[in-house]
Amino acid sequence: MLGTAVFAVTGVLAVNRRGLDVFGGVVLGTVTSLGGGTIRDLIVRAPVFWLEDTNYLVVAIVAALVVFFASRVIRSTYTLLLYLDALGAALFGIQATEKVLGLGHAPAIAVSMGVLTSIGGGVLRDVLAGRPTLLMSREIYATPILFGCTLYAVLRNIRPGVTTLAVAVAIIFCIRAAAIRWHIEMPGWLTSRHPG
Amino acid sequence: MLGTAVFAVTGVLAVNRRGLDVFGGVVLGTVTSLGGGTIRDLIVRAPVFWLEDTNYLVVAIVAALVVFFASRVIRSTYTLLLYLDALGAALFGIQATEKVLGLGHAPAIAVSMGVLTSIGGGVLRDVLAGRPTLLMSREIYATPILFGCTLYAVLRNIRPGVTTLAVAVAIIFCIRAAAIRWHIEMPGWLTSRHPG
Amino acid sequence: MLGTAVFAVTGVLAVNRRGLDVFGGVVLGTVTSLGGGTIRDLIVRAPVFWLEDTNYLVVAIVAALVVFFASRVIRSTYTLLLYLDALGAALFGIQATEKVLGLGHAPAIAVSMGVLTSIGGGVLRDVLAGRPTLLMSREIYATPILFGCTLYAVLRNIRPGVTTLAVAVAIIFCIRAAAIRWHIEMPGWLTSRHPG
Repeated sequence: MLGTAVFAVTGVLAVNRRGLDVFGGVVLGTVTSLGGGTIRDLIVRAPVFWLEDTNYLVVAIVAALVVFFASRVIRSTYTLLLYLDALGAALFGIQATEKVLGLGHAPAIAVSMGVLTSIGGGVLRDVLAGRPTLLMSREIYATPILFGCTLYAVLRNIRPGVTTLAVAVAIIFCIRAAAIRWHIEMPGWLTSRHPG
Repeated sequence: MLGTAVFAVTGVLAVNRRGLDVFGGVVLGTVTSLGGGTIRDLIVRAPVFWLEDTNYLVVAIVAALVVFFASRVIRSTYTLLLYLDALGAALFGIQATEKVLGLGHAPAIAVSMGVLTSIGGGVLRDVLAGRPTLLMSREIYATPILFGCTLYAVLRNIRPGVTTLAVAVAIIFCIRAAAIRWHIEMPGWLTSRHPG
Repeated sequence: MLGTAVFAVTGVLAVNRRGLDVFGGVVLGTVTSLGGGTIRDLIVRAPVFWLEDTNYLVVAIVAALVVFFASRVIRSTYTLLLYLDALGAALFGIQATEKVLGLGHAPAIAVSMGVLTSIGGGVLRDVLAGRPTLLMSREIYATPILFGCTLYAVLRNIRPGVTTLAVAVAIIFCIRAAAIRWHIEMPGWLTSRHPG
């Protein structure tokens, strides 16, 4: 639930430019926060989570609304929000991996759905806002989530429980936090050197 | 059904530039007209409406096809179409709100789905055509739908029936028509003043 | 399955520019290859095919991964890949038409789903990569698929079986191959001459 609010907030901040009106801002914030999980639930044919518990929708809309009007104040704490966003992404990813494994799907699918839930909302927001998606950048955002969810899917067989879950979240958060702190990008050999 | 045809028509007109071929034109017209309702049905796990009644698909394709070739004639009546589009959007929104309330969902969800059904097709078309979506503009398009669907969800508890439905459609249409007629945009205090 | 690998390969090659990193490349390749079928399965409410058989997911990811690093070698065989892509598109389209007809849907829907499965992945990739989608171009790509799937839906009533299926695939492939070989575009009268 905290992750939902944080994602709505960072979603609004990310697009809050270019004469955006309050309706567009709130829709884009809400999409950022609920979009990934919605696509996941559609694909695994589970009931969409925010239809089951309307609080997710309400929290996302309220958070987006508050931020739209208070964005000047909040922007000054933007760095703090980057870290909160990293925490939210880690929670979303691991929780989705757990949910999809619990539905009896293969680990490869659970990990894919973990990554999709984490980055899907932000990618959808960027498409709707006409911005380049994070898929086209070298930022280290999705890779730690992929790594952490894979690790979780493996460790869960050996030792299931909250500890393993917390360790996986912590690992994702630490890698991402290091990337934010020291502006680390994907190394050159993992990046296309193709001209054009 | 009228709404479906009108949306297909305005969908083709909106993108009919830049050397678009007939296949692209018809797909974009059809997406404009069926896209919003399709996403709504997927999310609430109802059977997709144009699979149940193929007439919707046929009407959308035929309308898009006719307009593609007759666009020069129809463009001269473009202002008329803007008003028809406003009527179509109002009908789509209220009908979707009613459908989702009828499935037993909370009002907040029904209203969200009403707005999604109304604007979803057009947003999808703009994404596929590489145009900025209406979410990024200050046009008064979605806000009256949001207002009207909310009003309908409230009034329906007090006095359900066709009258309430017609009143809600009329209110949405009148606000949108006024915005078209006098070129009203979102007021400044509801728009981000954030620099670039 | 061959079609899945080929689509993943061409997906990566199509976007492999602009400093794309390995994660983005693999996601875009996988989306190209599984995206169309996923949307089809969601709309007709069938279980998503790569959840049923994880091999599709694995093949797509491995193919995308190999190509990302070997793209310099493979690009020299790009023309070969265009033809393989045409074959993959034909197989995807006819197979999807058959699947949806088998679920008891109307021919108009089966043909729509055939085209959607064929082009959906590529369109999704272009949207995520911020490129103009094929809907906006005059390339002859989707039209032969539309024609072949329609033909198949008709012939299947007269003479069902593998022969009809193979003929439909061959016809799609030959038209597309001719378009590649002689750089044929949509004729002017099927293209919008609208200025602006």
